[in-house]
Amino acid sequence: MELPSTTLASAVEALSSLPGVGKRSALRFALHLLKQPTDDVLLLSEAIRKLATDIHYCHICHCISDTDTCPICSSPKRTQSIVCVVENIQDVMAIENTQQYRGLYHVLGGVISPIDGIGIRDLNIATLLQRVQQGIPAPVEEVILALPTTMEGDTTAYYLNKQLQPTGIKITTIARGIAVGDNLEYADEITLGRSILNRIPFA
Amino acid sequence: MELPSTTLASAVEALSSLPGVGKRSALRFALHLLKQPTDDVLLLSEAIRKLATDIHYCHICHCISDTDTCPICSSPKRTQSIVCVVENIQDVMAIENTQQYRGLYHVLGGVISPIDGIGIRDLNIATLLQRVQQGIPAPVEEVILALPTTMEGDTTAYYLNKQLQPTGIKITTIARGIAVGDNLEYADEITLGRSILNRIPFA
Repeated sequence: MELPSTTLASAVEALSSLPGVGKRSALRFALHLLKQPTDDVLLLSEAIRKLATDIHYCHICHCISDTDTCPICSSPKRTQSIVCVVENIQDVMAIENTQQYRGLYHVLGGVISPIDGIGIRDLNIATLLQRVQQGIPAPVEEVILALPTTMEGDTTAYYLNKQLQPTGIKITTIARGIAVGDNLEYADEITLGRSILNRIPFA
Repeated sequence: MELPSTTLASAVEALSSLPGVGKRSALRFALHLLKQPTDDVLLLSEAIRKLATDIHYCHICHCISDTDTCPICSSPKRTQSIVCVVENIQDVMAIENTQQYRGLYHVLGGVISPIDGIGIRDLNIATLLQRVQQGIPAPVEEVILALPTTMEGDTTAYYLNKQLQPTGIKITTIARGIAVGDNLEYADEITLGRSILNRIPFA
């Protein structure tokens, strides 16, 4: 598709780099922006620029933050002795949304995946061990491994468990089982099998 | 959903103003951008900023252009005596893609729609009449009305026809009928009816 303006063409090109956005959607976005007030478009441009220049990461848990220490790590209301290890920032947000967890987090920034060239050094693993060994920001009593149940997630959990065991702290993992509201007949065998093996007292 | 950073939150807010993009997709876009090289993100930001500041419209046909007169209006290869009136820039691109039309365009910028508060003065109608009356950029012999077949499109076409008739030029409209490859049995009655009334010699 030939566009009548190079400015429009480069906007379409840039917008189509967004995930799941093809040339056609990018064009729709660009033409939509053309009809918006100049201030709104500049606001969007500025907000995107800030993503590149103004984003900080918490030096303790590696979560996105406006400050050097994120609100969760610096909150006196959180249980600082429990650290939940997650793959990425989305997972922190997902767990926060449940409002069921009051401990701290540790964002690995991925999982071990030799196929994608992601090794131990590409992840925030050294700082996790440091946190547990040196008690940053407070002595750690429990590490919850909340990693995805994929080959890579399991490998990472296995590796972390092996590294953390010598410290003698409690290592747990989130419960796997039938989702609330799901029918047993449609559950996959591994999940159903695990949910029976790991059954809990009826409260 | 509470976001851990105001920079991220304002990016999500701004991105969700794009058409068909909700908070969840906007967050996906923002988190994707966080993982991209700084230069790529700045490029996107700059491309969007330019949409607000660097876009020009052709002073003859009102199509988007990098120059004061668009490549179509200034091309000596186009038939300057035929003007195709369309609703918006997308329509110009759609017709250009067919490679079947070699005349000029006139972009109205919308259609008459009292319900949306769009009247005659909000559209590029005065400049169309001027083009026909004064022969800009060349004497006009035919005006093709290529407007949508909606209540608003038909109203606009009716109005334009009434305004243009006194000038004595040829006024045509694009053929409505069964789309190439469509089955007659699935065509709507109005389209099929019109296609029979407006039948053409078998070439």
